[in-house]
Amino acid sequence: MRIAQVPPLYEAVPPRLYGGTERVVAHLTDALVSLGHDVTLFASAEAHTAAKLAVVRDQAIRLDPAPLKSDLAAHLFQLAEVRRRADEFDVIHFHTDMIQFPMFEGMADKTLTTLHGRLDLKDLAQVYQRWPQFPLVSISDDQRRPLPFANWAATVHHGMSAGLYDFSPRARGYLAFLGRISPEKRPDRAIAIATATGRPLRIAAKVDNADRTYFEDEIEPLMANPLVDFIGEIGDATKSAFLGGAEALLFPIDWPEPFGLVMIEAMACGTPVIAWDNGSVREVIEPGLTGFIVRSEAEAVAAVERLPSLDRAAIRARFEERFSATAMARRYLQIYERLTHSATPLTEAA
Amino acid sequence: MRIAQVPPLYEAVPPRLYGGTERVVAHLTDALVSLGHDVTLFASAEAHTAAKLAVVRDQAIRLDPAPLKSDLAAHLFQLAEVRRRADEFDVIHFHTDMIQFPMFEGMADKTLTTLHGRLDLKDLAQVYQRWPQFPLVSISDDQRRPLPFANWAATVHHGMSAGLYDFSPRARGYLAFLGRISPEKRPDRAIAIATATGRPLRIAAKVDNADRTYFEDEIEPLMANPLVDFIGEIGDATKSAFLGGAEALLFPIDWPEPFGLVMIEAMACGTPVIAWDNGSVREVIEPGLTGFIVRSEAEAVAAVERLPSLDRAAIRARFEERFSATAMARRYLQIYERLTHSATPLTEAA
Repeated sequence: MRIAQVPPLYEAVPPRLYGGTERVVAHLTDALVSLGHDVTLFASAEAHTAAKLAVVRDQAIRLDPAPLKSDLAAHLFQLAEVRRRADEFDVIHFHTDMIQFPMFEGMADKTLTTLHGRLDLKDLAQVYQRWPQFPLVSISDDQRRPLPFANWAATVHHGMSAGLYDFSPRARGYLAFLGRISPEKRPDRAIAIATATGRPLRIAAKVDNADRTYFEDEIEPLMANPLVDFIGEIGDATKSAFLGGAEALLFPIDWPEPFGLVMIEAMACGTPVIAWDNGSVREVIEPGLTGFIVRSEAEAVAAVERLPSLDRAAIRARFEERFSATAMARRYLQIYERLTHSATPLTEAA
Repeated sequence: MRIAQVPPLYEAVPPRLYGGTERVVAHLTDALVSLGHDVTLFASAEAHTAAKLAVVRDQAIRLDPAPLKSDLAAHLFQLAEVRRRADEFDVIHFHTDMIQFPMFEGMADKTLTTLHGRLDLKDLAQVYQRWPQFPLVSISDDQRRPLPFANWAATVHHGMSAGLYDFSPRARGYLAFLGRISPEKRPDRAIAIATATGRPLRIAAKVDNADRTYFEDEIEPLMANPLVDFIGEIGDATKSAFLGGAEALLFPIDWPEPFGLVMIEAMACGTPVIAWDNGSVREVIEPGLTGFIVRSEAEAVAAVERLPSLDRAAIRARFEERFSATAMARRYLQIYERLTHSATPLTEAA
């Protein structure tokens, strides 16, 4: 099948450090190529991909040191390039929210749009009402809640290349927190849980400028705790060792995170996840098998004590079954097939 | 003529405080109505307008306290409303840069797009190359320099309602600076000029969060100077007295500002402008009549000494001739006429 993949242009594909959407597009694209498909990736020039690369910007927007640039213009140009070449593809798969709707109205039935962000924003509903002809993919069922009426074609959970993270049969005696330092990620909860259980906590996290005040006021004082070790932002190369060495990943989120890639990154290493019951968590974590779902610090502390009951090899096996990039690509291929072979509108019932 | 006006949705129309584009759209819209035209304004609900108001959002985006909102979705919905009603208008006048291009490709010849921002941003050129069918208006000739190839229909300088600012026949012994506190506005130069001439300087300015560090590190220390009086951000009601009382407005910009509304606001009060030779300044200021154009602090100091040679009544008269909202509306009407009566593409030669 001839497939176009259209990621946002903010980060490299895959990103060097943070950047969930571009990371998933990279995994999906390579997995589709592995499965024998003809894939073209419309991305910035630094992309590493097994697909054909159509360069639509000299570098990713956030990596570009130019002080004066336009996100909107960059994406409009990218989409114009996709449209100019649209006849070359059986399916055009967008990861760019809604900006493509006006330009692809005439061929909505050969497009698929995966929504990667939270959907409880003001202004969104009226746009998905106005352009109902575009089939949409949610990355968790929970993500759909604010837009139940939208044209949902399927939920496809994220996947990752199984080779990217090494299975680690044995942990090395610490709990891990990985992500941005921000109020909705609740690193303070992670510190409280570690403190209550007397376990060391290693925090690998980025501090965005927007979260600098929160970091300095709320989190930095907590790091005086000798159990807490803050190691800053880490890339893919060190993530495997960091996650693989952990007794558990703590994922104490306070917002409806639509997926939460770090959970499956931990599972790829065989590391269980102790996660707050929020967003996609119930769809990703299988309690007693790949981790525990909790609703309070007391429950989280109890979960830490129950970690020895989990089998790290079984966690890795569940990752491979449910969350490998190949599993994700196969799910998407089923939807692409329905798109290209169905004369009727694409709905989940079809 | 049946005219749609499409402003951005960031600020109210007109804005309560800062916000150049929405202010100009407000003046233009009311002036077109005064001249007998049937005008519809697609704006947020708090707009004050003599035109018919088509409400496309409950409030302006920047005034909206909702923490989760989408600029892009708000504008896509606005544009979808304009397109749904497009048959009702002879001319659709956009002030929204480029986001309307994909949606109005089928009727570009009945649209006009005024570009209100600087055009020397990376990514812009390729978009104006890709959608050359949309006739564009620059707000100064200088603004066009980065995009000389674009489909320019005309330059139309901004105008303002003549009744908004009172003519002040006599100044009250101070120099004025009005705008944002930011490196490219160079409030430090204004302070240096005032100090060198021994004149008091009153600074009425907004400090954006992005400029907070610049303000604290570079400007606040200079305010210990007893000649300098910082009065914060002011609205339209107090601007007239503030500008009318000044011997001159200092406009020592360090960037190619495409227009600079505050220059004509000063002129409306009869107040001359001492402006750096940058951006639109040569097109707005007539040296020896409405102010002086300078290239150094020494030249600015000399210009302050020459202020008594200028006639404040003549400055107000030039404002009314060149920069009233009615003058602006008449210029736009000429272009609208060319759009609606010309079978050939709209170019300046036509």
